[in-house]
Amino acid sequence: MSNIQVLLVAGTHGNEINAPWVFDQWAQNQDLIDRYGLKVIPVIGNPLALQKGQRYVDRDLNRSFYPDLLNSLNSSDLEIARAKNLVDLYGPNSNNASQIAIDFHSTTACMGSSLVIYGRRPADLAIVSLIQNRIGLPVYLHEGDPLQKGFLVEAWPCGFVVEIGPVPQMSLNSRIVRQTLLTLKICLEEISKSIDLRSSFPQKLIVHRHLKSIDFPRDSSGKPIAYIHRDLEARDWHPIENGSPIFEDLKGDVIRLSDNSFKDKVFPVFINEAAYAEKNIAMCFTQREVWNFDNSWKDAFYELINS
Amino acid sequence: MSNIQVLLVAGTHGNEINAPWVFDQWAQNQDLIDRYGLKVIPVIGNPLALQKGQRYVDRDLNRSFYPDLLNSLNSSDLEIARAKNLVDLYGPNSNNASQIAIDFHSTTACMGSSLVIYGRRPADLAIVSLIQNRIGLPVYLHEGDPLQKGFLVEAWPCGFVVEIGPVPQMSLNSRIVRQTLLTLKICLEEISKSIDLRSSFPQKLIVHRHLKSIDFPRDSSGKPIAYIHRDLEARDWHPIENGSPIFEDLKGDVIRLSDNSFKDKVFPVFINEAAYAEKNIAMCFTQREVWNFDNSWKDAFYELINS
Repeated sequence: MSNIQVLLVAGTHGNEINAPWVFDQWAQNQDLIDRYGLKVIPVIGNPLALQKGQRYVDRDLNRSFYPDLLNSLNSSDLEIARAKNLVDLYGPNSNNASQIAIDFHSTTACMGSSLVIYGRRPADLAIVSLIQNRIGLPVYLHEGDPLQKGFLVEAWPCGFVVEIGPVPQMSLNSRIVRQTLLTLKICLEEISKSIDLRSSFPQKLIVHRHLKSIDFPRDSSGKPIAYIHRDLEARDWHPIENGSPIFEDLKGDVIRLSDNSFKDKVFPVFINEAAYAEKNIAMCFTQREVWNFDNSWKDAFYELINS
Repeated sequence: MSNIQVLLVAGTHGNEINAPWVFDQWAQNQDLIDRYGLKVIPVIGNPLALQKGQRYVDRDLNRSFYPDLLNSLNSSDLEIARAKNLVDLYGPNSNNASQIAIDFHSTTACMGSSLVIYGRRPADLAIVSLIQNRIGLPVYLHEGDPLQKGFLVEAWPCGFVVEIGPVPQMSLNSRIVRQTLLTLKICLEEISKSIDLRSSFPQKLIVHRHLKSIDFPRDSSGKPIAYIHRDLEARDWHPIENGSPIFEDLKGDVIRLSDNSFKDKVFPVFINEAAYAEKNIAMCFTQREVWNFDNSWKDAFYELINS
């Protein structure tokens, strides 16, 4: 039998309440989700922020997992302490080690359900291939963004984020709850299959590879002077190209996409995510790529699962 | 010339950012909105909450305007101090008196644009009749709810709330911005017409009269055990009746509307408004009524405007 243990995290952001609610229902009714014999640890990422109904208390927990911060001795930020705590309790070198971390989020952007991976770790590419092959979710590959780092799942050998939207912060929503539950069940089932090597890996993985993020146009005081153009609002995953309208203002002026580094159509995601305005992100641009599935991903994943 | 002065409030809730943004754009470009010669005072209701991106700091400012609180001497709540401050600066008995207050909000509920009045003050009924006659907005008459009191506009002789949705908290949104701007312009134009008695009052006013609010079903610890039923989500203003599904849970159990006091169809509003969960409100039920326009409303309004 595999010793694999899966860390399931909800409420890493305290105002994303749907996944924590599902976890709470699950705690009260163990039959709600089949574990397929897997050892799983469901945990609330940021309990105090959840209690307060805020994204975070001192800083974004999901940007607090990079080594410099985890090794710092003199921070008083609640989230840095919590990041250390989670790694100490469930990290790969802890007494209660988990090898896979799945972090359940929601977004105000109209993205539907998607998976997010950070960089190109082979085991991550394997597991999201399994889930995409099963229920078709898009995979957002976040890489090459030095301004955004320290994501929770990076502190585990394998892991990814599940993003489900659109839903306002602090709203329990029928569709979001059901899709969170569905995705969670599928994740556990796919991991369990890999224990006895029954996984169905696809031949291709479709990724939306991060190219860059852009900010709202702002005045000298830092206030936005324009908003997402009406034709772009809610059009996550739909390709646009140079010349496409992206912002508009109250005078009727339109700002169009104009980026010489974009040779082809780009696919915006996280359009107008409410929590990203403070990070100076109005949307992220991705490039859609179809990759051949690489057997080294499978090998890495099987090795992780069955070692 | 009338001495009427109109207090325009945005950001009474600090995480409803669209109206404050419109006000900010207006401050930078006075030509954005025609004042029609009116004296207007645009003000941010809760500047500190807006800066923090929170609905409020200590308590809901828009429940802080009732006499007991305004006259209290020993509260340390920021919002009670701010309520007193606004009344001192712009209240009907201040040196810079405004007679009409219009308070611009946004909601996460799928309500479109609507007007909210508190009780049946004749001048309020007159002005919302003018606006409904002009652009057809529904009017939610909030009354008979002892648990919800102390609304900002009640501290002025005439006033109402403009609610525009759906939009997540902390999101600047093209449609919400444009509808806030449109409604603001129409309000000022209609008030200006009344100064020289050019108002076009309708023969009828359609009101959605508040009947009651209901909470989510909760367990003994106070946590919700069900969410808005998928068939009701986003169906604000659409009539339902006893037997209609209103909540569902993860086991598939459905809770149906069952209220002996409802003899006819009721019209839910503020379905799943994110900020209302803490107030134990999952939705509000209203009764749609068509009232004959009463000339005493016009008289009261003209007297207020032209005194």
